[in-house]
Amino acid sequence: MANAPVDRIPAAKVITDPAALGRYQHDEAEWAPYGMPLAVVRPRSAEEVRDVVRFCLAHEVPVIARGAGTGLSGGANAVDGAVILSFEDMNQVLRIDTDERYAVVQPGVVNDDLRAACAQQGLWYPPDPASSPWSTIGGNVATNAGGMCCVKYGVTRDYVLELEMVNGRGELVRVGRRTAKGVAGYDLAGLMVGSEGTLGVITEITVRLRPSRPLERTVAGYFDSVVDAGAAVSAVTAAGIIPSALELVDRHCLAAVDAWKNMGLSADANVVLLGRIDTPGAEGDAEAERMRECFEKAGAGWAVVSTDQQEADALFQARRLAYPALERLGPLLTEDVCVPRMALPEMLRRIEEISQRHDIHVANVAHAGDGNLHPLIITKAGDEAAKARAQLVFDEILDEAIALGGTVTGEHGVGLLKMAGMDKELGEAVLGMHHAVKSALDPAGIFNPGKVVAVRQK
Amino acid sequence: MANAPVDRIPAAKVITDPAALGRYQHDEAEWAPYGMPLAVVRPRSAEEVRDVVRFCLAHEVPVIARGAGTGLSGGANAVDGAVILSFEDMNQVLRIDTDERYAVVQPGVVNDDLRAACAQQGLWYPPDPASSPWSTIGGNVATNAGGMCCVKYGVTRDYVLELEMVNGRGELVRVGRRTAKGVAGYDLAGLMVGSEGTLGVITEITVRLRPSRPLERTVAGYFDSVVDAGAAVSAVTAAGIIPSALELVDRHCLAAVDAWKNMGLSADANVVLLGRIDTPGAEGDAEAERMRECFEKAGAGWAVVSTDQQEADALFQARRLAYPALERLGPLLTEDVCVPRMALPEMLRRIEEISQRHDIHVANVAHAGDGNLHPLIITKAGDEAAKARAQLVFDEILDEAIALGGTVTGEHGVGLLKMAGMDKELGEAVLGMHHAVKSALDPAGIFNPGKVVAVRQK
Repeated sequence: MANAPVDRIPAAKVITDPAALGRYQHDEAEWAPYGMPLAVVRPRSAEEVRDVVRFCLAHEVPVIARGAGTGLSGGANAVDGAVILSFEDMNQVLRIDTDERYAVVQPGVVNDDLRAACAQQGLWYPPDPASSPWSTIGGNVATNAGGMCCVKYGVTRDYVLELEMVNGRGELVRVGRRTAKGVAGYDLAGLMVGSEGTLGVITEITVRLRPSRPLERTVAGYFDSVVDAGAAVSAVTAAGIIPSALELVDRHCLAAVDAWKNMGLSADANVVLLGRIDTPGAEGDAEAERMRECFEKAGAGWAVVSTDQQEADALFQARRLAYPALERLGPLLTEDVCVPRMALPEMLRRIEEISQRHDIHVANVAHAGDGNLHPLIITKAGDEAAKARAQLVFDEILDEAIALGGTVTGEHGVGLLKMAGMDKELGEAVLGMHHAVKSALDPAGIFNPGKVVAVRQK
Repeated sequence: MANAPVDRIPAAKVITDPAALGRYQHDEAEWAPYGMPLAVVRPRSAEEVRDVVRFCLAHEVPVIARGAGTGLSGGANAVDGAVILSFEDMNQVLRIDTDERYAVVQPGVVNDDLRAACAQQGLWYPPDPASSPWSTIGGNVATNAGGMCCVKYGVTRDYVLELEMVNGRGELVRVGRRTAKGVAGYDLAGLMVGSEGTLGVITEITVRLRPSRPLERTVAGYFDSVVDAGAAVSAVTAAGIIPSALELVDRHCLAAVDAWKNMGLSADANVVLLGRIDTPGAEGDAEAERMRECFEKAGAGWAVVSTDQQEADALFQARRLAYPALERLGPLLTEDVCVPRMALPEMLRRIEEISQRHDIHVANVAHAGDGNLHPLIITKAGDEAAKARAQLVFDEILDEAIALGGTVTGEHGVGLLKMAGMDKELGEAVLGMHHAVKSALDPAGIFNPGKVVAVRQK
């Protein structure tokens, strides 16, 4: 590896200047370790990706695919001596088929750019992670990204039809299909989704689209406690309502966004629930009113179906900006646990208890309708004692999520930060199956080594 | 293998009487080969399944899981000397969680029985293969079964949350999760779905449920030609309508059902299209009318939004009975190609051409809204020359489906009948990935050997 002939990497755009390599070393998981890559390659075609993978196979060099670097688990972090494949130059929407309702894109297309291109054709690509203005479809596929509309419309995996990829033998192949249904062989496309670049490198993605949807109604509720808000979410589910979004934002997040963007957000309440309903017509109006009643009965101090689109958009914008706003206050450690919907109030109660016991500030945003919580663990930069306590908070939240029947990661991925948690969640036998799949599809062990599954001696 | 001590199979219910073994030798794919099993085991618990798999591992005996035997590709067919695990005694709905909206079932639960149990709780399990009165959830998962409502609600894979299974090391494990979202590790549950028992044996299934849905409106259209009907389907898609069902039944099928059940079906037209809309309220009424207009503009001689629920149900019942009705007329060879929706008229045209050229009778039913066609190739019992021509028809239809960008199997699975077609569709490199996954998860090669992927010498 140390002797890999960098100057013979078969690609036109190769970066080896140490100063320029810096911005490719890690993603936004500030607490995860990272190394110094051998080189960064900015491929311009699938064939170039294939050639670089073959080079890496020949010289036993790790290869790490990278989108926009907005990941929150360290999945895109460099390991020493790796080649980073950065897809910023493969950012084209190649085709939108309005009849079959799919789009074919290069991995570096930014999520919002795809959504805008689809909207021009009267179509909609649902998965909408909060990072959608920056994150790429390639990264979204690698992590099986979720977002706000998952509660009704599912996650990235539900939209991936076909992938072009370079496999562990350096072959450029297509897995999946473009038809509405298909069961010819194993679901290798589904297996690639969420595998965080550990089983191959994706070079092209075909995603299913939906027709544009009607305008959503927004229902906002202000609560005194996260526990009350959690009860409101459970009530919505129990009422058989499937909202198109159901988000929770606590006071800390609202205040941080306001301090940054001066949006004039009310921070009178401790928690805000933001629901959306996109059922068309009078049925949708009735559903929105039923959701408002659920909020009210669960103890909302104020609950309203918004008639002011601008105000509603501002509230959702605040939700999206919670992460970057809090990041301004110090190093963030981001959780991503997902628990059964009905366990949401109890999980929020336990987070509060853990936070108080360790005297560590925890702000909460959540895709509440999915039971997917993002406790944001905040410490002051340089306070090492607080950082150690924060790590305890992080670990205990994972343990409580598992204890409640949940998972350590709902949508951010395992990367580096959740590897220990995943091991606890899955157990030895299922981990063994993971290692078997990893070895089968990446026999040389070059794809993003040490992420998701630990490197095992052969 | 020949020396496997049958009398030491670690299960209470073991059948070895050759006469009794007969009904476990094959599924409904009448043309596929099958062998004589060593024994049939009717397990009563997951632990018993695990013990039988360990016995088979120790003695290198093939093990084949079997639901109701309604498969149409030979996936459940016995190979000589195999142990058949028949799940007829593991047929309990273990739990329906109305709050989290999931059901936990044993593999032998019949699809319609689960649907009925869910309905009692105001919930709905969407996947509805035409075999739903007989086929089991275990078999549905193994083949990733589809059905009529897929066009709006997806296939079995979209509903499987968690599986308990016995893996290739004889370990009883859980893969997947019960939360709404989760990305902790590879999607092994998704990989199991549709793998036709070649990667392990499923012992328990947790499926996602939806709230009960509103009554559907039925739109029926009568057409002179399958090509016109295909054009109507394309028009519905192009209009942005997502029907809750969109089925095509040709005159041959209607006549066969009528001859059997005497339902008084009109067979004036050559092709009937049956659409359903379950969008609630006035919006749904408007959509149904728009669908009717699409039918009319595409050349329907008669197109109507049905106000007679009984008549509508009879038409859909006829669709469901098409396969068994035609089966009465002679050995059936069933196709299951899926093509891009817009290619449906062209695919139907090519099927007609192939049928005429080989002088073989082909009846058509189709999940038209998905582009998933089931040409039913009919010959007289004992007519060997016709049978040879029918095989040519079968192969040519597969070739044309691939040529139109489709797949050789939309929902029935590969089993034995589609192995050659799958090989053509996927190509050598992707087949290599299949073999790698198979060897990784079934290193001893005991799970349903020779199905989906060919047995390769090690």
